[in-house]
Amino acid sequence: MLVQGKNMRSLWWDEGIHFIDQRKLPTKIEIFTATTLKDVCYAITDMVIRGAPAIGATAAYGMVLAKNMAQGAKKLRQTRPTAHDLFYAVDYMIKHQKQGIDPLTAAENYVTDIITCCKKIGEQGNTLLKRNTQILTHCNAGALATVDWGTALAPIRLGKNKNLYVWVDETRPRLQGYLTSWELTQEGIQHTVIVDNAAGYYMAQGEIDLVIVGADRIAANGDVANKIGTYEKAVLAHENNIPFYVAAPHSTIDYHTTNGKKICIEERPLDEVTTIQGKQIYDTSARNPAFDITPASYITGIITEKGIFRPQELKNQEKNKGP
Amino acid sequence: MLVQGKNMRSLWWDEGIHFIDQRKLPTKIEIFTATTLKDVCYAITDMVIRGAPAIGATAAYGMVLAKNMAQGAKKLRQTRPTAHDLFYAVDYMIKHQKQGIDPLTAAENYVTDIITCCKKIGEQGNTLLKRNTQILTHCNAGALATVDWGTALAPIRLGKNKNLYVWVDETRPRLQGYLTSWELTQEGIQHTVIVDNAAGYYMAQGEIDLVIVGADRIAANGDVANKIGTYEKAVLAHENNIPFYVAAPHSTIDYHTTNGKKICIEERPLDEVTTIQGKQIYDTSARNPAFDITPASYITGIITEKGIFRPQELKNQEKNKGP
Repeated sequence: MLVQGKNMRSLWWDEGIHFIDQRKLPTKIEIFTATTLKDVCYAITDMVIRGAPAIGATAAYGMVLAKNMAQGAKKLRQTRPTAHDLFYAVDYMIKHQKQGIDPLTAAENYVTDIITCCKKIGEQGNTLLKRNTQILTHCNAGALATVDWGTALAPIRLGKNKNLYVWVDETRPRLQGYLTSWELTQEGIQHTVIVDNAAGYYMAQGEIDLVIVGADRIAANGDVANKIGTYEKAVLAHENNIPFYVAAPHSTIDYHTTNGKKICIEERPLDEVTTIQGKQIYDTSARNPAFDITPASYITGIITEKGIFRPQELKNQEKNKGP
Repeated sequence: MLVQGKNMRSLWWDEGIHFIDQRKLPTKIEIFTATTLKDVCYAITDMVIRGAPAIGATAAYGMVLAKNMAQGAKKLRQTRPTAHDLFYAVDYMIKHQKQGIDPLTAAENYVTDIITCCKKIGEQGNTLLKRNTQILTHCNAGALATVDWGTALAPIRLGKNKNLYVWVDETRPRLQGYLTSWELTQEGIQHTVIVDNAAGYYMAQGEIDLVIVGADRIAANGDVANKIGTYEKAVLAHENNIPFYVAAPHSTIDYHTTNGKKICIEERPLDEVTTIQGKQIYDTSARNPAFDITPASYITGIITEKGIFRPQELKNQEKNKGP
């Protein structure tokens, strides 16, 4: 991804893990460095790094920093419950250690594979975009969320010569829409931020041609867990006959979970709702589910590195899954 | 309404108009006083006062402060375009002046009528509420928005001995959900604030029995203009088989506008989106429509002071309209 005109990744290894600190964006570009397992767990829990594929990459490198793999696996699995990539990456590292592969080599391979997958997702998704297509996206499923390229944003990056226009949901409570706006600004892609409440309005006005979002976990039947509000946008897209796509690499697909009802939804601290930009609005009762489930019936297609599948076709892909 | 245990109105006349300043709530209770037409126009435009029936009451009193009715009418009609009550109140004052009625007497009658209507809306709407009903509301359609009682909140106030539970959308960009939370706290009614993105999640979980919202303008065919995001909640309620009600007095119903497409939607300053609690998040392109249109087909019923009507029955009520 471009950051002030230079190519960067959202995280990289250099005697520890270095992250673009997503809590500080879009206001400041600051690097957070993790040199212990404890640092890594904090970076995931406090959302220095976020986005399922990026959490997976962090967990892979995190296993390198763990004193032993069993302890590392235990601590990392406790950080956040919903993103499948986290559990996938931990299992990947254990499997490769058993095969006698050096942990750092295994982690680097994992990260390289994710980057390759995201670029391929971009190539697949780009086939859906025509000249002047207006796309709505929710949350940030960009390079920040995936090391490089992004999932939902990868087709948009690759299609940027098509005069695309991106509607960006601001995505309360954590306002990840501003991360998306920041990435699109860096790439010179025209876009507009709207409050989450306004997406339906612009759909009804005929100003949105296509919705693309990322995913945190995809069940075997094609139900998708993603950032809270995704379900709302999917229902609205369905009602307005707008195609609704989910973009994700194989590491996000959980073939062992039969449907979305079985996915654990994280509830995060309530002050994410009642406090904005560090200022408490009102001391009142709140609830803060971080994700929701979009039933497969609302999803036009799932864009993966292997192609674009209808949700019900996903199960056939299990045998072809990645490393 | 109760404010710290005492009965208050959101605005009242005492040698000028006094408002509970809604820009300062829920953090501070401050009174804003308007003694000139210019003050009144500022109070409406800057949202010291908001909510269609309260804007109507403000306009009625504002006409008392105008040096002449024609100038007052012109300036007041330019403040905000969507709420029908504003235009209704200005016309009401002109009509009563022509009948030789003293302006302050006419304005006081107007305000008394709105309060009476809201209480009756509460009585009508209360018939929909059973013991333990869980209600979702969007924006603030409480006493703050209507002088007293509220529209959407009036049935909840009158039904508060039924162990009701209220889910409150925070309502970005201006966070009027916190005004609702503040009102419900004052009345001792249990409730929870959620981000707008989470309403669909709780509907899908079966935790919402009923939706009640207010209105800024209702077209003759039953299409409703209300706070941005109302359309999203209506579509989601429809998809989840949850009854969706709109509560409004006759002054909000615009029999001269045949359908929602003909209602003017105000776009407000962009910094309401990109700045939160006085702090700019990011200097980026944004759009900020303040209202949306909910087609009549998504509305179960419209709760008025005369009864609860299906949207298509509304037209028959024109002959019975108020003063």
